[in-house]
Amino acid sequence: MDILKLIEEIKPISREHDKKIQNRLNNLTKPLGSLGILEDFIIKLGNIQNTDSPKINKKRVNVFAGDHGISEEKVSAYPASVTPQMVLNFVNKGAAINVLASHFDVDIKVVDVGVNFDFSEEINILHKKIAKGTKNFLKEPAMTKEQAIQSLVVGFECAAQAKEDQVDILVAGEMGIGNTSSSSIITSILCNKPIEETTSKGTGISDSTLKHKISLLNKAMELRDFNKNDPLDILMNFGGFEIGAITGLAIGCAYHQIPLIADGFISTAGIALADKFSPIVKEVVFPSHSSVEKGHIALLELLNLKPIFNFNMRLGEGTGGIFTLPVIESAIDLYNNMATFEKANVDKKLK
Amino acid sequence: MDILKLIEEIKPISREHDKKIQNRLNNLTKPLGSLGILEDFIIKLGNIQNTDSPKINKKRVNVFAGDHGISEEKVSAYPASVTPQMVLNFVNKGAAINVLASHFDVDIKVVDVGVNFDFSEEINILHKKIAKGTKNFLKEPAMTKEQAIQSLVVGFECAAQAKEDQVDILVAGEMGIGNTSSSSIITSILCNKPIEETTSKGTGISDSTLKHKISLLNKAMELRDFNKNDPLDILMNFGGFEIGAITGLAIGCAYHQIPLIADGFISTAGIALADKFSPIVKEVVFPSHSSVEKGHIALLELLNLKPIFNFNMRLGEGTGGIFTLPVIESAIDLYNNMATFEKANVDKKLK
Repeated sequence: MDILKLIEEIKPISREHDKKIQNRLNNLTKPLGSLGILEDFIIKLGNIQNTDSPKINKKRVNVFAGDHGISEEKVSAYPASVTPQMVLNFVNKGAAINVLASHFDVDIKVVDVGVNFDFSEEINILHKKIAKGTKNFLKEPAMTKEQAIQSLVVGFECAAQAKEDQVDILVAGEMGIGNTSSSSIITSILCNKPIEETTSKGTGISDSTLKHKISLLNKAMELRDFNKNDPLDILMNFGGFEIGAITGLAIGCAYHQIPLIADGFISTAGIALADKFSPIVKEVVFPSHSSVEKGHIALLELLNLKPIFNFNMRLGEGTGGIFTLPVIESAIDLYNNMATFEKANVDKKLK
Repeated sequence: MDILKLIEEIKPISREHDKKIQNRLNNLTKPLGSLGILEDFIIKLGNIQNTDSPKINKKRVNVFAGDHGISEEKVSAYPASVTPQMVLNFVNKGAAINVLASHFDVDIKVVDVGVNFDFSEEINILHKKIAKGTKNFLKEPAMTKEQAIQSLVVGFECAAQAKEDQVDILVAGEMGIGNTSSSSIITSILCNKPIEETTSKGTGISDSTLKHKISLLNKAMELRDFNKNDPLDILMNFGGFEIGAITGLAIGCAYHQIPLIADGFISTAGIALADKFSPIVKEVVFPSHSSVEKGHIALLELLNLKPIFNFNMRLGEGTGGIFTLPVIESAIDLYNNMATFEKANVDKKLK
């Protein structure tokens, strides 16, 4: 698969159903526009699915897992051992994303893109390990160019698989101790903001660890030689394999015109990199929450996505993104099942 | 029923389960506190239900409908005829709240507290009409003291009925052309803010109608003789019957310790009045969205409730409030079904 060539083949999203959907929305028994973003979502979904009768039946969350060389610098609140432990927790259905996916009837695919652990081949995950974690980007690029491309391909193939499985919408989740460090640098580069403005406390580090993390990320950006306009170069220097896979997933969603829900900071960093590869990406992406990570807000602004919740969550795994599903699903239900003014014999707005 | 006496009997909400619930949350396989408001909601719900195993099985939205004398002053985007028409639309399951209630498995009780229409006794609503709409508060108090108390009783009885029906959580919805005018004045008084800061475009009025509305509401506040510290006097002078019923519902929820979800501006105005009767009210109330009405934000601040969504909705009926339900329900599911660190063999936070 020549993914860089496929990116060039991404087609624009249709606009031809805008008007018909808007007309139907305007005829439903409610004040004009009063369903707010639910109306915007119906139009966006109709455009992506190229229909005036958008639908969501099958839903999936992809959880990409990878380890990070940078975690040896003690930038995280949790030891790196937690990445494989949490992958096994996903397999045993004990993690937050398992409970939420089951609650909202979403299927989960956990993908090992680069966890530093030898999983038994028997366990129910996609075995796509590129390496046992990235390199420490303070000392050398996080991965080779070939590995960066490989991570994109893993994600792209997950989108293709979703297409084949007739999945109607995806959520981009992740797990990887150390991955807010990668995301802060990616955000700093993409949004042209200093590290101080894109770095928060991750899963809960102390003030002194935050200071250490900021100084270390600044140092890494000085040390590495990269082209800030080349998303592949950014990914290769600072990425995580799971971030690259999310980038590939988002590219695949744009290619196959599959709606994709962004989760928190890391997920959105991967999607923002994808949007740097092709600006059509943002047109297939739905927002979810704004996490407590300030870099997340910067990325959402860059992508012109307005978060719709604020639950003060900072967990990842896709746990924020999944909450957009009941909103989209109920919006479809409203669109299909509300009475029109005419049918209900309700007077329209005064002139 | 002597509702003013019942208000004095409202008992404080227990705090005794705080610690046990917090301990369990801290042992689940996620960074400490990373489920944000979902964790806060579990604790709040446990306290209201007086248990460390909170649950939500049966859910109900009460939609109170009433007409407003002030609507003859042309302050609304829709004619007053829409109030009874929408009540019939609720009965025929064609309105937004019907679709959402069905989507989220919530039962609906529509209550006519004061609609200017003779409904057939056959239709499936609660017939509690106090009068055929309030009086125009520009000319006289909106209702008599007896009517104000009667509206509180209607709402209180709905809470008592919910208790009897073993409903675990309520949503406070409303319908009434003209009721943002009442809500703006109530908000202005309760929050001690000028009308200009509590009045927006309702269901979609023009700039010139907004100007007219603001000047008229200011005039009404000057003309009426009321005690700004007496919620009954505020209700009687400026209320709607449906607003009084929501106030009574919220009082009843505090009395019977039933969790109540606030909807938008009007719903929250009714709840804020209830909180003026008894400050325990806010402890049983869960927030939902922030609507586009600026008075809504002021009321949420007054009640120390942080909105968790922003869908740009401005529809009422309970349509915003209902979206808090999947959040609370999934929070309970997480609390009950996530693995603990010990069980999943996941390492805890680094010291």
